[in-house]
Amino acid sequence: MSESSGAAVVPERKYIPRRSLMYVPGNDERKINKIPQLAASGADCICLDCEDGVAINKKEEARNSIRKILDEQSLDFGRSECTVRINGVGSGFEQIDMETILSGPNLPSSVHLPKVENLDHLEWFAAELNSVIASNAAQKIGLILFIETAEGLLNIKEICRRAQELSDDSFFVPEAIVFGSDDFAADIGATRTKLSTELFYARQAVVTAAKAFRMQAIDCVYIDFKDLEGLEKQSLEGAGFGFTGKQVIHPGQIGLVQKAFTPPEHRLQWATQLIKEFDEHQEAGAGAFVFRGQMIDMPTVKQAKNVLQLIAKDS
Amino acid sequence: MSESSGAAVVPERKYIPRRSLMYVPGNDERKINKIPQLAASGADCICLDCEDGVAINKKEEARNSIRKILDEQSLDFGRSECTVRINGVGSGFEQIDMETILSGPNLPSSVHLPKVENLDHLEWFAAELNSVIASNAAQKIGLILFIETAEGLLNIKEICRRAQELSDDSFFVPEAIVFGSDDFAADIGATRTKLSTELFYARQAVVTAAKAFRMQAIDCVYIDFKDLEGLEKQSLEGAGFGFTGKQVIHPGQIGLVQKAFTPPEHRLQWATQLIKEFDEHQEAGAGAFVFRGQMIDMPTVKQAKNVLQLIAKDS
Amino acid sequence: MSESSGAAVVPERKYIPRRSLMYVPGNDERKINKIPQLAASGADCICLDCEDGVAINKKEEARNSIRKILDEQSLDFGRSECTVRINGVGSGFEQIDMETILSGPNLPSSVHLPKVENLDHLEWFAAELNSVIASNAAQKIGLILFIETAEGLLNIKEICRRAQELSDDSFFVPEAIVFGSDDFAADIGATRTKLSTELFYARQAVVTAAKAFRMQAIDCVYIDFKDLEGLEKQSLEGAGFGFTGKQVIHPGQIGLVQKAFTPPEHRLQWATQLIKEFDEHQEAGAGAFVFRGQMIDMPTVKQAKNVLQLIAKDS
Repeated sequence: MSESSGAAVVPERKYIPRRSLMYVPGNDERKINKIPQLAASGADCICLDCEDGVAINKKEEARNSIRKILDEQSLDFGRSECTVRINGVGSGFEQIDMETILSGPNLPSSVHLPKVENLDHLEWFAAELNSVIASNAAQKIGLILFIETAEGLLNIKEICRRAQELSDDSFFVPEAIVFGSDDFAADIGATRTKLSTELFYARQAVVTAAKAFRMQAIDCVYIDFKDLEGLEKQSLEGAGFGFTGKQVIHPGQIGLVQKAFTPPEHRLQWATQLIKEFDEHQEAGAGAFVFRGQMIDMPTVKQAKNVLQLIAKDS
Repeated sequence: MSESSGAAVVPERKYIPRRSLMYVPGNDERKINKIPQLAASGADCICLDCEDGVAINKKEEARNSIRKILDEQSLDFGRSECTVRINGVGSGFEQIDMETILSGPNLPSSVHLPKVENLDHLEWFAAELNSVIASNAAQKIGLILFIETAEGLLNIKEICRRAQELSDDSFFVPEAIVFGSDDFAADIGATRTKLSTELFYARQAVVTAAKAFRMQAIDCVYIDFKDLEGLEKQSLEGAGFGFTGKQVIHPGQIGLVQKAFTPPEHRLQWATQLIKEFDEHQEAGAGAFVFRGQMIDMPTVKQAKNVLQLIAKDS
Repeated sequence: MSESSGAAVVPERKYIPRRSLMYVPGNDERKINKIPQLAASGADCICLDCEDGVAINKKEEARNSIRKILDEQSLDFGRSECTVRINGVGSGFEQIDMETILSGPNLPSSVHLPKVENLDHLEWFAAELNSVIASNAAQKIGLILFIETAEGLLNIKEICRRAQELSDDSFFVPEAIVFGSDDFAADIGATRTKLSTELFYARQAVVTAAKAFRMQAIDCVYIDFKDLEGLEKQSLEGAGFGFTGKQVIHPGQIGLVQKAFTPPEHRLQWATQLIKEFDEHQEAGAGAFVFRGQMIDMPTVKQAKNVLQLIAKDS
C-alpha cells in the first residue's frame, strides 16, 4: 500500500482501471494501425506485446517498432492506457527489450512482466529498470506481474511482498497481477475446459493474494472468441470472484468484458454517497464512521474512490 | 496441541463444541433478555458482541452492559457457552473493550478476536490480555480467531502457529477459527451468492489450517434467514467439508444448524466402541491398536472423544 | 530438478510413469502370487505394502515377506515398477521396516513414505536411508511422498523443497506426491463423497506443488470399485487437473485408469514432432525455438520427452 517513498521522488499515480486488457503484437503493423479503433471501442488497457504474440525471429522488429510508437506519439490511444509486455526474465530477450523500449523520453504507462516465478526475477527487473530508465522520469510506471506457472503460484505471497518492497527504491509501482491461465495449465499439465474447473484453485488463490496487497487481479483469457455467451458467463464469474478485469484476445470481446467488470448502478450510488459523507466527517474532524449500518474504514473509502474513478474515466 | 504450560498454571479446558454460534449485540437490551430462550433452543455458543453488531456511538454502552452481565451472573445461559466479541486490533476500541470486559472477577468462557491479519495483532492481544486479566484467573479463556480478510487468509498458517506459541505464556487457548465470509468477500471484492462458489478456496483453506492445528473451524453465515432449505444445504456442505460449526444470525437458524453439525448415530457408536477398546488396550499396556480394520492413533482417539463430548453435552 | 550430485555418484534414473498405482499387502500370499497377473494387466506401479493394508500383528510378517521377494527375484513384475510402502515416521515401525527391507542386495525401484507432515519426517528418512542402504547401490531409489493430513498439506511447499535438497546427499530422488484422500478427509473431519467436492482445494494444491517441483502427482483412490463409470469420470477429471496417475485398490480398476492417464494420439504426435525439431535445432546450435506458434523452452521439451517415454514403455 505504500506507494511512493525512498529514492525516486515522483508524483503518485492515479488509479487506472484495467477491465479489459487487449494485446497487440508489437511487430504487426496492420493490428497496430487499428489501435485507435480498439481505443474507441473502450478497452481500458492496450498492451504492445513483445512476448507470446511475437515469433522469435520477429522479436527485434517488435521491440524497435514499440520504441518508435512511444517516440513518435502519433497513435491515438484515446482514453486507453498504453502498456508494453516485455519478454520474461530468463528468456534471453528481457534485457534488450528493456534497454530498447524503456530508455527513451516517452515511457509506456505500465510494463507487463510475464512468467514471474521467484524473487530473483523481480530483483533483476527492479535493478535493470533503475539502470535503464531516464532518471528524470515524470512519474513511476505501473508494474503488471504475470503468475502463470506452478512455481509462480506457489511463491505468489513472497512475490507480491517483494514487489512492494522493491517499489520503494525503484521506478515502478506494482499495480496488478494477471493470471496467465493457458501457460499455467500447460505448466501443471492440466487440460483447459470451458468451465475452467481445473483452474478454480489457482484463480481464487491469485485473487486472494492480489487483494491482500491491494493490487488488481486480472482473469484468464476466454479462447473461443466466437462464443460470446460463454465469454459473458466467465467474465461475470470472474468479477464475482473478485477479479477487476480480464484479458481479451479479440476486439469483439472488449465491450462485453468492459461491461462485466463495471460496477452496477447501485454500487455507484453507494460509492458516491459514501465519499460525500466521508468528506463531511473529515471536515468535522471525525475518524471512522457508520454508513448504511457499516463501520467505514480507509480500505472501504479506497474501494469507493476506485469505483468513482471508473465512472470519471467513462464520462 | 500443547495446551497449558509456562507461566500460567491453570486447569486444562475441556472440549467445548460450537456447532451454532449466535451473536447478541451487547447494547441491545431486548435481545439480551432473550438469551435464556436462545440457550433453551440449544445454541452451543452465545456471543455478546461489541463489534459489527454494534454501531460506533453504542460501543461504550455495549461494553459496559457486557461487563455488567458478567458481574451480575443473573442471566441464564443454560448449557450454552457465554463468550464476548471485542473490536479488532486497530479499530481504536480494542484496548478499552479488553480493560472493561476482561478485568472483572467473572470472565467469559472465550473471547472472539475479529479481523486477525498478521502476527502483530495476536501479539498485541496476548500482551494486553496478560496485563488486564486477574492473575488468579480460575482457568484460561478460549480464543476464537476470525479470518475475514485476504491478508488474514494469506497469513493463516503463521497466525495459527503463533497463537499456539503465545498461549504457552498467556491466559488464552486458541480453540477455533471463524471464517468471516462477508467481510472476506467485501475485502476481495467478491459478490456473495447462495452457492458460495466465490468462497470455495477460502473456506477449504480455513478448514485445512484450523485442523492442522487441531482447532475448530466455524463456517460462514447464511444471510437469508427465511430460506431454511438453503441454510440446511449449506450447513451440511460445511459439515462435509470438515467445519465443526456455523455462525447464525437468527434464532430460527439454531436448531437446524445444531443438527447439521451433530455427528450421526453410526458415528456415535463408532466413537463409543473405539474409546471402550482404547481404554482396554491402555490397561493392558498396549499402544496403537487396530479397530474395525484401522490402526488407531492418538488423533483418532481425540476425534472419538470429541464426538462423545458432544453427546455428553446434549444428555 | 537437480537430480544427482554430491556424495552419491550413481547413474541418473530414467522417467518412470505411474499412471496406476496398485497396492498389494506384503503379508497376503494369495495376492502376492497374483502379481504377475497385475503386471500383465498393465499396472505401471505395483507397491508391496507394509502400512495401511497390513494389520498391526502382521507387520513383521509383511516386512520379512517383502525382503524375501526382493532377495529371491522370482516374481515376474513384467514391465511394472516394483515399489515398497513402509510405515510412516512416528508409527514405531519405520526403522525396522527400513532396516529389514532396504539393507539387502536388491532394492525396490522406489519407496513410498506415507503421512509426511513436516521436515523432521523427511530428515529422519534421509538419514536412515543413508545408514541402511548398501553404499554400492547401483542407482538411487525413487521417493514417493504421501500428503494425507492437514499439516502435511499446509507444509507441502517446504516438504517438496527439502526433499529436493536432501536428495543431493542421499540415495533417493523425490519423484512423486500421492494425495492420500481418505486419510486426509478423516484428518480434517470431512465426509467423502463421489464428486469429491470436499477435496477440491487439497487436490489442486497438491498438483500445483508437485508440478512446481517437477514431480508426479498421483490422485485419490476411488473406493467403490464396482462403479467403473464413476471411476472413469474421476480419473479423467484428475488427468484434466494435471494429475499424472491414480491409486487403485482393485485389479479391475487398472485398465481404465491406465487409459485415462495415457496421453491421447494428438498429444503423442505433438511430442514426437517437437522432439524431432528440437533435436534439429540443437544440432544447428540454436536455443529456444518456435513450434506450432509456441516458444519452446526446456520444461516443454521435458514434457514432450515424458510423453514419449510413456509410449516407449507401452511398445
